[in-house]
Amino acid sequence: MDRRKFLSTLGLGVAAAGVAGCSQTDCGPEGEQSSSKKWRWKLVTTWPKNYPGLGTSPERFANLVRTMSNGRMDIRVFGANELVPPFEVFDAVSRGSAEMGHGAAYYWKGKHVAAPFFTTVPFGFTAQEMNGWLHHGGGQELWDELYAGFNLKPFAAGNTGTQMPGWYNKEINSVRDLAGLKIRMPGLGGEVIKRAGAVPVQLPGGELFTALESGVIDAAEWVGPYNDLTFGFHRIAKYYYYPGWHEPGPTLELIINKTMWDELPEDIQAIIRAAAAWANQDMLDEYTARNNAALIELQERHKTQLRRLPDDVLARLKQESDTVLAELVAGNEFASRVYDSFLAFDKGVRNYTQVAELSYMNARAALTGE
Amino acid sequence: MDRRKFLSTLGLGVAAAGVAGCSQTDCGPEGEQSSSKKWRWKLVTTWPKNYPGLGTSPERFANLVRTMSNGRMDIRVFGANELVPPFEVFDAVSRGSAEMGHGAAYYWKGKHVAAPFFTTVPFGFTAQEMNGWLHHGGGQELWDELYAGFNLKPFAAGNTGTQMPGWYNKEINSVRDLAGLKIRMPGLGGEVIKRAGAVPVQLPGGELFTALESGVIDAAEWVGPYNDLTFGFHRIAKYYYYPGWHEPGPTLELIINKTMWDELPEDIQAIIRAAAAWANQDMLDEYTARNNAALIELQERHKTQLRRLPDDVLARLKQESDTVLAELVAGNEFASRVYDSFLAFDKGVRNYTQVAELSYMNARAALTGE
Repeated sequence: MDRRKFLSTLGLGVAAAGVAGCSQTDCGPEGEQSSSKKWRWKLVTTWPKNYPGLGTSPERFANLVRTMSNGRMDIRVFGANELVPPFEVFDAVSRGSAEMGHGAAYYWKGKHVAAPFFTTVPFGFTAQEMNGWLHHGGGQELWDELYAGFNLKPFAAGNTGTQMPGWYNKEINSVRDLAGLKIRMPGLGGEVIKRAGAVPVQLPGGELFTALESGVIDAAEWVGPYNDLTFGFHRIAKYYYYPGWHEPGPTLELIINKTMWDELPEDIQAIIRAAAAWANQDMLDEYTARNNAALIELQERHKTQLRRLPDDVLARLKQESDTVLAELVAGNEFASRVYDSFLAFDKGVRNYTQVAELSYMNARAALTGE
Repeated sequence: MDRRKFLSTLGLGVAAAGVAGCSQTDCGPEGEQSSSKKWRWKLVTTWPKNYPGLGTSPERFANLVRTMSNGRMDIRVFGANELVPPFEVFDAVSRGSAEMGHGAAYYWKGKHVAAPFFTTVPFGFTAQEMNGWLHHGGGQELWDELYAGFNLKPFAAGNTGTQMPGWYNKEINSVRDLAGLKIRMPGLGGEVIKRAGAVPVQLPGGELFTALESGVIDAAEWVGPYNDLTFGFHRIAKYYYYPGWHEPGPTLELIINKTMWDELPEDIQAIIRAAAAWANQDMLDEYTARNNAALIELQERHKTQLRRLPDDVLARLKQESDTVLAELVAGNEFASRVYDSFLAFDKGVRNYTQVAELSYMNARAALTGE
């Protein structure tokens, strides 16, 4: 029996609920209104509706919030261009025309140069390191500070794990092989390959296959085996390159209009916070499982040839990455603070990872011949 | 204004809520009772009250559930021996004398030989791989099936990341150096070192320091830098060994009495599920950040000497581990099914990790000289 029926049973109309007379902002978490008030929110995303992994995750997030709140917080998810174009998600949520958004901070570098640090930067953190920095290393506090200036509250809400640097028809045996190569690679990774001699091309995912097939581009970076397999890149490109120096552990974000967030009761805030954490882990778990199965299919069924970027190419990319990041933050006090925090955590966590996860995985690989 | 006050304002006593007349099991998630009914549950743990990381995590879990449910689900956390001894947590929750428990599945090997697979096994999964297997690789379904036989519902609710195989005063340069060495190492890891010639000793954490200091044991394994530093092992042992072959990514568990779980409304179930996922990630994030800082302190301030187990020792331990696991599941249909699922996921995920996280981390380490 719901509240409406219950009050009706008592001979009271639903309007009676109004006598408590508490507005959204006045109601504490313990208030009657907080358990009967309902919200219908819009979540706009930078992904095609229900795109595997990236787009299905915010749908699951919304379902979890709906169930946990017993229907009080009802979030409707919109794919890219359904309400706003993908790259207007930030502005739409900032001004409140949608209450929530899902995307990636590095899309908003034009808003602030520090934004990419909250998704991923070249030669940056793995997913586990990123989560450690955000949640117990000071990262979230810096992210909150940055986004508060845009009236936004951010949460980590997904991670793809280490991505793949893409599909090539030409082998890369030295830095010289990058010269003039038209490679689809957005963001800071694109800036890095440009300085190493390549020509970065910006293209939305939906145009990649045709561009690569027709030779408009020479190579294409997308996500990883799970998403790349469904695009069919293996049918038009010979080599699948690793490792993912350009996006070693990208965090996807949930953003919320801060004015509206601040007005939510404590229980609904906690529900959204926990659902974002659930989504943050669930997406990584899903990619870990599905990339694994997709890579087997690519190798065994489609005979995709894996290639590792040579050491000298990686060394040059690392060198250019350091320069690009230093130039990015130069002269900006806040961005410099973010970079300092990133570098301090990075130094320590690499030192630790070296004796923990990395050392273990290397020992296992050596012992099992894989 | 709470419900009691609201009804009182309308001239109705709280008893009126009873007219809906729905018992705990009858109420659907949409029912009025589900938003007014309160639960006061007990969560018993295998950890000392508020033990850093392992013990503070269930406290945070309980706080999050309390906030999300607006106080309807009120969980009180008990440390080891406060209500039941640590190794009676499983039975206590199974029979319902406590509604919830927090510990590790490998403590319950005596209940079923398959249990350790749901925490960690020697040369098994890292935290990320384990989460992938549990949540998108069939692991959770097997875990549910196993624990349902004990009237329990399990969730992953914490992970320490790759542990450290411990503190030694003698250098291990070959398998021969293990002969007769009394090493505190519980569970399957202990069984493995026994077959490699060492003498595994079972001791609770609180007795480790004195036992190692007095020479009752020659070496001690505990968790990792964060927890080990607070015990002060660096004051009485020269060498800190890696990598953590014995516990590469142990999952801690939340267990719930299944009869009581099944009677919960859908919203409270979802709240508990999300809070467990939050705790699962938060503990790993915390260990990732704090192990990192603790290792720096051990190395720089206390001059702790790190040592890597030699390749031939690791090879012998791997060989014994394979034997121990095969013997463990032999003749048990369910355990064999779990092992098959584990092996299938393991093969695929190692193949993928090799080109993703592992390859990236190795490239980064080579380029930064760490």
